[in-house]
Amino acid sequence: MASIDLNSDVGESFGRWTLGDDSAMFESVSSANVACGFHAGDPSVIRATTAKAAQAGVVIGAHVGYRDLAGFGRRFLDVDPKELADDVVYQIGALQALAATAGTRVKYVKPHGGLYNAIVKHTAQAQAVVDAVKAVDPGLAILGLPGSEVLRLAEKSGLRPVTEAFADRAYNPDGTLVSRTLPGAVLHDPAEVAQHVLRMATERRIMAIDGTILNVRAESICVHGDSPGAVAMATAVKSALSDAGVSIASFA
Amino acid sequence: MASIDLNSDVGESFGRWTLGDDSAMFESVSSANVACGFHAGDPSVIRATTAKAAQAGVVIGAHVGYRDLAGFGRRFLDVDPKELADDVVYQIGALQALAATAGTRVKYVKPHGGLYNAIVKHTAQAQAVVDAVKAVDPGLAILGLPGSEVLRLAEKSGLRPVTEAFADRAYNPDGTLVSRTLPGAVLHDPAEVAQHVLRMATERRIMAIDGTILNVRAESICVHGDSPGAVAMATAVKSALSDAGVSIASFA
Amino acid sequence: MASIDLNSDVGESFGRWTLGDDSAMFESVSSANVACGFHAGDPSVIRATTAKAAQAGVVIGAHVGYRDLAGFGRRFLDVDPKELADDVVYQIGALQALAATAGTRVKYVKPHGGLYNAIVKHTAQAQAVVDAVKAVDPGLAILGLPGSEVLRLAEKSGLRPVTEAFADRAYNPDGTLVSRTLPGAVLHDPAEVAQHVLRMATERRIMAIDGTILNVRAESICVHGDSPGAVAMATAVKSALSDAGVSIASFA
Amino acid sequence: MASIDLNSDVGESFGRWTLGDDSAMFESVSSANVACGFHAGDPSVIRATTAKAAQAGVVIGAHVGYRDLAGFGRRFLDVDPKELADDVVYQIGALQALAATAGTRVKYVKPHGGLYNAIVKHTAQAQAVVDAVKAVDPGLAILGLPGSEVLRLAEKSGLRPVTEAFADRAYNPDGTLVSRTLPGAVLHDPAEVAQHVLRMATERRIMAIDGTILNVRAESICVHGDSPGAVAMATAVKSALSDAGVSIASFA
Repeated sequence: MASIDLNSDVGESFGRWTLGDDSAMFESVSSANVACGFHAGDPSVIRATTAKAAQAGVVIGAHVGYRDLAGFGRRFLDVDPKELADDVVYQIGALQALAATAGTRVKYVKPHGGLYNAIVKHTAQAQAVVDAVKAVDPGLAILGLPGSEVLRLAEKSGLRPVTEAFADRAYNPDGTLVSRTLPGAVLHDPAEVAQHVLRMATERRIMAIDGTILNVRAESICVHGDSPGAVAMATAVKSALSDAGVSIASFA
Repeated sequence: MASIDLNSDVGESFGRWTLGDDSAMFESVSSANVACGFHAGDPSVIRATTAKAAQAGVVIGAHVGYRDLAGFGRRFLDVDPKELADDVVYQIGALQALAATAGTRVKYVKPHGGLYNAIVKHTAQAQAVVDAVKAVDPGLAILGLPGSEVLRLAEKSGLRPVTEAFADRAYNPDGTLVSRTLPGAVLHDPAEVAQHVLRMATERRIMAIDGTILNVRAESICVHGDSPGAVAMATAVKSALSDAGVSIASFA
Repeated sequence: MASIDLNSDVGESFGRWTLGDDSAMFESVSSANVACGFHAGDPSVIRATTAKAAQAGVVIGAHVGYRDLAGFGRRFLDVDPKELADDVVYQIGALQALAATAGTRVKYVKPHGGLYNAIVKHTAQAQAVVDAVKAVDPGLAILGLPGSEVLRLAEKSGLRPVTEAFADRAYNPDGTLVSRTLPGAVLHDPAEVAQHVLRMATERRIMAIDGTILNVRAESICVHGDSPGAVAMATAVKSALSDAGVSIASFA
Repeated sequence: MASIDLNSDVGESFGRWTLGDDSAMFESVSSANVACGFHAGDPSVIRATTAKAAQAGVVIGAHVGYRDLAGFGRRFLDVDPKELADDVVYQIGALQALAATAGTRVKYVKPHGGLYNAIVKHTAQAQAVVDAVKAVDPGLAILGLPGSEVLRLAEKSGLRPVTEAFADRAYNPDGTLVSRTLPGAVLHDPAEVAQHVLRMATERRIMAIDGTILNVRAESICVHGDSPGAVAMATAVKSALSDAGVSIASFA
């Protein structure tokens, strides 16, 4: 039976501010990218999120980011690679301790936002992330874009690289994502998104924005959890996969 | 041969700002209370500090504090006990991961500043600290004031309570510290401080500010590291203990 | 024609996190307590909020708070009064500049959350707030609880004290608020809240939780903007006042 | 009589951490770039610094930076220009209010660190700074590098651009600064620095690192205040200028 991992960003509330409906998302996804406090997620949010994930049987990953609460970690920050490595170790360690008190463990790392985008190309920051993850636990996988520097360096370093695709993003014929500044970059129709994911999961292919069929090497598919209609979309994806006999299961 | 632990606050720099001379302090003390990022200590400072401590053979403790960089964690914060517990787990976990990358381990927890003072009496916050420490690692000791709520609850909870005295603080006849707002509260003369410590270490006694002799149950003595002349004072204490045949060794 | 001021907390979003529906609230209230960045409200949120308030003809006040984003300024912080005064000047100045670029001006100050509650009794912190407001602009009014230290000191200092009551809070027979930890402390029924406000505005009276009728000296009534149903409640209050021929107008 | 402005970064302490000796620097410089809280400078530091500057007759400028305490504002942050403009307005407003309580006024703006470097070339961020300054007070001058985007746009926008040179930095033959990563980039000898400044002030020339003589259009010269020996260097510069009959006076 075919199987695919669905991952989603969770634990992105902070203090008085809530974001997303993590409990609902846990009914559809198999992997939870938990914010670690630098771009979102205070300690109580983290503990509660890891406890809920554990209860739902969802695998936990560290969603590490730049130290930038005001920008939600979405802005590139030209941080020194050595300092970045320490920031990443700090965040993973904090999450590990809170996850342990919730009876579960961190299994992978997925860089967030501006950092995620930067280390597609930025070799020094990518290496810093890889070094940090390896220093904390060489058993941790790293989730990233196919062809990215961070996955190349992870593999070279002996870490397990895990490729991901995006459920609600349109692709260019060359396999890159259509820029968010262009029309059609983000898919909003749950049925369309479900078809998109189904093709990724069963055919290992994707239809690009111009109709071209691309081969996609994705071990995990990212389902966004913080947009309006996120839960409905995740539910549609889950149903489509289930109807096609594809199980949703962690890559870990 | 008699033996006493000397502890000092270290890792209190942050970004561009440096505070204290940790390397020099490590020549005199046996235990390092390492700031964990909430009141001081960024991840790179923490990593560097734990590495230096490991190299010097100094035992590492988590100096956990309120989330208050602007106030250096010195101001009482009426944080909800459940949130405080999560804040403490987060800080210890972050330090554990950085210490591990430096080849060493966290052995104890010493609450910092406003939190340290609060949990002498504040039962709910004291219990939160104890719960957090126990949840992370029941093998961690807790350093605190003799007679404090936090040590009473630590013992009750099965954690090892470790009492400490202060090298450079004057005591009232009832064993409490002379308030910093009163003259003579802080001792500035290295020779006087050395005598103070020697009496604590060898006679388990202390001379209060009025000349009264008090019995002091201190397993560790705190030597401040961030004041002018801190290093000179620590060196004087070390020499006095050495001359008296008292070794400086961790309680752990 | 009778008239009353309605005030509401706004500008409480921060970065990626949104809170409340400020535009909708501006259709009902006459005064906007704008967060100034220490407990909520980043600069872009503040500018947008002041611009919307100006357009809606709503008067702007500085909702100054403790420096505590993680706690939303709701936790008591034992900050030194001199530092608190500087923190308050900083926040008011920042808001003044952003309000000016939006073509409007700050007319009053309302302390927020933990600070609001503290300076009902805490004389030194209350004096610090009064000193700060006076130093920035002696023409600024201060909004607070009737009988509070901050209003007593404001009046003594030559500032205009403005008393407020709460639309959705139950009162004890002695005029204090029923603790949020007790049942019935917060009113949830829009019709009941509307009646509560109407009695405050037209009869200058309020029915306490035990049925006792109290005289209430409130120049302004606080309508919460961040709870579920906040907009519906504000609309109900506005309608009730309008039906009774009471106009909603700033105290300023 | 010839005259030149000397400016220095001040108010860069934060909470428990002190940096630089502002009082000593005020004996040599005519303009004070006061940190505004985003990269350094808490409200109490700002108030104390502006009060000291006012007493010393030193003109005050807003040293606005990226929101990055951990990086001291030195790291490029890819902040959205609209948000950057709001961040700048916020910082200037906060400083204006604190300066006013100290009896003085903000006369200019000098972007700090990573922002200063970015807006030499980054047109959108440069325009954001210019827009913000103009929105707050079109009478404020902007200090920057000769030939930078920010000064070009400031002039175009009707603001006064003020060019500056660096007392302790070596120049390339093309007038750019020698990269800090190269040997000889920073001058450490007070006598050499004093000669460097004297040539800038009296001949409007500078000797580049290869001996080439460059024409320098600098209305202000930056003297660093946070390095070891900063005060000695400033004193040497002041003496050399005084001996040469050049007065030190604000450009404002």
